[in-house]
Amino acid sequence: MKTVKIIAPATIANLVCGFDILGMALNEPQDEMTLSLSDQPGIRITHADEYDLPVLPLQNVAGVALLALMEEYDKPIGFDLIIDKHIKPGSGLGSSAASAAGAVAAANHLLQNIFSNEDLVRFAMNGEKLASGVKHADNISPCIYGGVTLIRSIFPLDIIPLDAPHVFVTVVHPQIEVRTSDSRQILRKEILLKDAIKQWGNIAGLVAGFMKKDYELISRSLEDVIVEPVRSILIPGFDEVKIRCKEAGALGGGISGSGPSIFMLSKEENTSQKVEVIMKDIFEKIGIDYKTYITTINYEGVKIIESK
Amino acid sequence: MKTVKIIAPATIANLVCGFDILGMALNEPQDEMTLSLSDQPGIRITHADEYDLPVLPLQNVAGVALLALMEEYDKPIGFDLIIDKHIKPGSGLGSSAASAAGAVAAANHLLQNIFSNEDLVRFAMNGEKLASGVKHADNISPCIYGGVTLIRSIFPLDIIPLDAPHVFVTVVHPQIEVRTSDSRQILRKEILLKDAIKQWGNIAGLVAGFMKKDYELISRSLEDVIVEPVRSILIPGFDEVKIRCKEAGALGGGISGSGPSIFMLSKEENTSQKVEVIMKDIFEKIGIDYKTYITTINYEGVKIIESK
Repeated sequence: MKTVKIIAPATIANLVCGFDILGMALNEPQDEMTLSLSDQPGIRITHADEYDLPVLPLQNVAGVALLALMEEYDKPIGFDLIIDKHIKPGSGLGSSAASAAGAVAAANHLLQNIFSNEDLVRFAMNGEKLASGVKHADNISPCIYGGVTLIRSIFPLDIIPLDAPHVFVTVVHPQIEVRTSDSRQILRKEILLKDAIKQWGNIAGLVAGFMKKDYELISRSLEDVIVEPVRSILIPGFDEVKIRCKEAGALGGGISGSGPSIFMLSKEENTSQKVEVIMKDIFEKIGIDYKTYITTINYEGVKIIESK
Repeated sequence: MKTVKIIAPATIANLVCGFDILGMALNEPQDEMTLSLSDQPGIRITHADEYDLPVLPLQNVAGVALLALMEEYDKPIGFDLIIDKHIKPGSGLGSSAASAAGAVAAANHLLQNIFSNEDLVRFAMNGEKLASGVKHADNISPCIYGGVTLIRSIFPLDIIPLDAPHVFVTVVHPQIEVRTSDSRQILRKEILLKDAIKQWGNIAGLVAGFMKKDYELISRSLEDVIVEPVRSILIPGFDEVKIRCKEAGALGGGISGSGPSIFMLSKEENTSQKVEVIMKDIFEKIGIDYKTYITTINYEGVKIIESK
């Protein structure tokens, strides 16, 4: 086996109240990547998409993730990587995580799975560091494990896959730019203890809600009193999307990662469709280009679709 | 039926990382109370114990809890209450919660259970307000529901019983006084966002650990970077208890409620016994009187033991 083709899912980090510790994988959109083992040392990256991302390994999130993996592999190896992105960079849907996680998961498959999933998260976090300046795992982990994951701690790494019931996820990606580093900088370094208590009540409620498959509890817990009030200022239409989608029956939702995408969870498919109509209506009125998705939780994570 | 005798369990609020939102009921110690319906309106309280607590209903935590219940009951009723406390007031083991929760649960039984458990928590919180100045439910809820409970929110009240695996709980109560109001005042009103993130990672981990019955995850999550470092200063011997008990194999533990009691969870009974020996050794050396308990989770909450 010398070549493997994979798909790597988009992911929603934070999940409203779980800033930096929760993430969910989606069935749409997904990146495609083809990775081949090569006798020639080093990494050669080519792009099959329109995004004009860097090809130098040290400047490319998939590249630095692969370099981290190669450093722990004791034999000299080389890779040829073709990236075909469908998750737009800067969308808040885990585009960099999909590249980094997809690349190392593909490499691991070519190397007869000598590394654990936790190793792969560790390698792929180097991509997040390159993209945003900070090693975080709330997109990487669900991208690799699938489903909903809790990252209890990054140092040391402690990833806990959580059961989660079937939900429909409607996403709107307004085509504006919010840089992860900017949206991190505007957060206050100190918060009120009473807000923190409210937040960890909601996080505990959301985790219990997912595990009990209790949609009402999930809905009540999808509240963020710390990050959303600050970050949502950068996203036009945010408040209206949230209010109207919840009125239409959505369980709740918020900013995907650091934005600008907004996601809403629904128990029923027809609610998720109503939510999409509302999102379209709002961004048509505002006059910002947008893209919408109706999708579900991806329970598999990075998936091998071809291997030869 | 005119008289009911109940036992009301001690409780551990906070459970290390779940400040104000988590609580656990214990099989030891327990208060006993006897409540009788009376044709004579009002509440008459007598004490069968040595603690010299107030007998005037408005000054007694069980009294104000019963008064809140009577206010919502549409007919004039009266109660005679005999309180036999075994949970020492000021121990940090939910003594006031046991009185308040026990009284309203007993009254509800006499009134053919017309109130829900949530109503009872609401009534009993008036006792906590009297005792500590703040309405909190993290002792009251496990006392009424039993087991481990999450209080996602107090206004509106949202109580979620969580599954929890069998554990042994070793408690040491050093006989020093820590007033709940004092131990609340020394907390900082603002905390670092990065500490809060660590804390909610641990809370999410602890909830997932309880629900998955994953002892290792429970153990890793029993860490408090916000409240314990401040409050433990008021408890001599705290750090040594924690370090040595964990070395002896305890899963972890910390301050019970606002202290001064310290609790440690163990998977095996013989570990809980080793933990007790360590606790005794430390407080003997310090020269402070103490009391220890080895107990388990009480899954029933307030229990009717006689009714006539």
